[in-house]
Amino acid sequence: MPEFIKLLPPGKALSILMEHISAGADSELIKTTSALGRVTNIPVLAPHPLPSFSRSTVDGFALQAKDTYGASDSLPAYLKLIGEVPMGAAAGITVGSSQCALIHTGGMLPLGADAVVMIEYTQVARPGEVEILKSAAVGENIIVVGEDITAGDKVIPAGKELREAEIGGLMALGITQLSVSKRPVVGILSSGDEVIPPQESPSPGQVRDVNSYSLQALIKKHGGVPALYGIIPDTADELRKKAVQALKECDMVVITAGSSASERDLTALVVKELGEPGVLVHGVNVRPGKPTILAVCDKKVVIGLPGNPVSALVIAKLFIVPVLEKLLRLTHKPPEPSISAKLSINLSSQTGREDWIPVRLRKVTDGYLAEPIFGKSNLIFILVRADGLIRIPPSATGLGAGENVEVILM
Amino acid sequence: MPEFIKLLPPGKALSILMEHISAGADSELIKTTSALGRVTNIPVLAPHPLPSFSRSTVDGFALQAKDTYGASDSLPAYLKLIGEVPMGAAAGITVGSSQCALIHTGGMLPLGADAVVMIEYTQVARPGEVEILKSAAVGENIIVVGEDITAGDKVIPAGKELREAEIGGLMALGITQLSVSKRPVVGILSSGDEVIPPQESPSPGQVRDVNSYSLQALIKKHGGVPALYGIIPDTADELRKKAVQALKECDMVVITAGSSASERDLTALVVKELGEPGVLVHGVNVRPGKPTILAVCDKKVVIGLPGNPVSALVIAKLFIVPVLEKLLRLTHKPPEPSISAKLSINLSSQTGREDWIPVRLRKVTDGYLAEPIFGKSNLIFILVRADGLIRIPPSATGLGAGENVEVILM
Repeated sequence: MPEFIKLLPPGKALSILMEHISAGADSELIKTTSALGRVTNIPVLAPHPLPSFSRSTVDGFALQAKDTYGASDSLPAYLKLIGEVPMGAAAGITVGSSQCALIHTGGMLPLGADAVVMIEYTQVARPGEVEILKSAAVGENIIVVGEDITAGDKVIPAGKELREAEIGGLMALGITQLSVSKRPVVGILSSGDEVIPPQESPSPGQVRDVNSYSLQALIKKHGGVPALYGIIPDTADELRKKAVQALKECDMVVITAGSSASERDLTALVVKELGEPGVLVHGVNVRPGKPTILAVCDKKVVIGLPGNPVSALVIAKLFIVPVLEKLLRLTHKPPEPSISAKLSINLSSQTGREDWIPVRLRKVTDGYLAEPIFGKSNLIFILVRADGLIRIPPSATGLGAGENVEVILM
Repeated sequence: MPEFIKLLPPGKALSILMEHISAGADSELIKTTSALGRVTNIPVLAPHPLPSFSRSTVDGFALQAKDTYGASDSLPAYLKLIGEVPMGAAAGITVGSSQCALIHTGGMLPLGADAVVMIEYTQVARPGEVEILKSAAVGENIIVVGEDITAGDKVIPAGKELREAEIGGLMALGITQLSVSKRPVVGILSSGDEVIPPQESPSPGQVRDVNSYSLQALIKKHGGVPALYGIIPDTADELRKKAVQALKECDMVVITAGSSASERDLTALVVKELGEPGVLVHGVNVRPGKPTILAVCDKKVVIGLPGNPVSALVIAKLFIVPVLEKLLRLTHKPPEPSISAKLSINLSSQTGREDWIPVRLRKVTDGYLAEPIFGKSNLIFILVRADGLIRIPPSATGLGAGENVEVILM
């Protein structure tokens, strides 16, 4: 296998691929109500300040702070009650010296008032008069106009994935539609003479297509639109025809080869002819997934994945997900969700190679234990049994039992 | 506020609520291709073994292990090459003593063969004869029928959320549709005279509805179907009418009150009348979110959330999400994604109260720094600026700068 002579570490392989991606996805205008999980592609600016009026943060009495100077339980300040601030309307009252107005949380601060004393520190002396039992500082229990957001503030940067908080924030500003990156369309081609559609019954020697569907799910989860091109017979002509079509119709193409070396060579052969610059990386120093092909053809990324379902998903996480994020212009990426755990057993590894090991998490008294899941089959059920993956870096010769590991959740 | 005299800790409040939830969601049959994120409600059993035929895990020669005994570079075993195993078809060859057959990764093991020697440890001596340079053990480089999965195996338990691996695993077994829990419908009512729809321009004293939309997104993210009932004026009659309708049409009802104490009292009043057993918890010893109401009315959960957007989302994470998971029968819950970080500053807290503090994560040389985000406004943009939340447990009086904290990602 001469193409594997110079195996690149996965980090280096990814950076070579990334350097060749020039354009991101186009933008589209969508409703904020359906923007969960989408990525902003221009910054969102506040059209007006928030709060848009000065308001009370407590239930209490709006007043002039100077009138409460020295007030205490034993020596209350007596203020004239001039009214109640209605909720949801302008205050409509002006609080003068030695006066106060009843106000509720969120109510608009009346003109003249510069502080609110909580209801707990007051009592009604007689009708129309309130005892203030505590002195207040100017600004106490008030949020002033623009204290949270000033007009023109960049409230959400470009390249951020929208969560429930951002959806709420957009609505607070009256932004009911916004510009986001279009979801990149990812063509998925499955090749291999032994591969049949899942709804068919395999004859001896045949296996059902797993990768089209696990990849479809992964791509959906990470903001792409999967487009299945079905199972392609193992001939260069058939594979080339479908690959050319997919490259034309999609923003990115993924080909999962069958399991034999000849099928993988066929993928390499076809990818080489798809467009310039072509294959950038063939063979990555990672397990599983060594025979990975990374290419850019006519400005679109083409990735050749190993046919083995475990390898295909691990490599998809290492290479397809970052490419999707780059196409989506997801520059404000949150930290990858992970769980700290202690490794249950010793794991050996080959220096220079990066290993990804599926593990099950088991809750123990002081945290989690990460139990590696082995199986020579490398069938998809290895990953079904796993909660996540741990990484053995290229520099290590293994990891010891009891060592702290970060489990990347799947 | 007499209802707050006995504030329950959030954990206790949640367990009281959970005890009163009897039924889960109904089941429905869906296509496996659209099952990502859905929850199984019966176990998935394997209809047949996997692999369904004995196969090679490498490219090499299928042979009888006994014929390779003692073979080495200097003393090869010479075997007669009787053919090649085709991919995707029955082997169609029987390997006898001193014979071998070319086989590819994933190819079906021919009858008679009990091991495969990797192609790297062989060379073709002359046409029709292969030198084997290494001895093989019985079973080497072979996966036998059922080695991964036996017919009848419980391959996915009930109550598990389906990820890309499960989708692939189901397809490997030809399971193209399956039974999952129906998505619970959650009615969202927003009350408060000061609240207006997001598309309207607020007059002085008015604020836009944030909670309906941040909750809508949260509920979608956690497997529910949000149903918005709009903004309800602050009268018991109007709120009761809408709440009764929502309770009839939904599996669960959430009411976010306006920000004033009187609006919250109105919610409590209405919830009390909705059905038996009614309000279970009124007031939780947590910040933010103290005025939370937890109720079960006619077997359906009703939750009264504080109107403040930050409190509403934090309390939704603490109470709505676990209820949704219970309705979905999500019993195999993966660990909550979190990031270990060091706290950037001292945080004080009141003993007995559980605090949830929004934090921003900042990458530093040896991990992450969690920087608390403060702001008396408690407007939604506090959470927009945050990456996650940290918890100060009721037993603590605070956390110190430099302490390790787990940041629950939002």
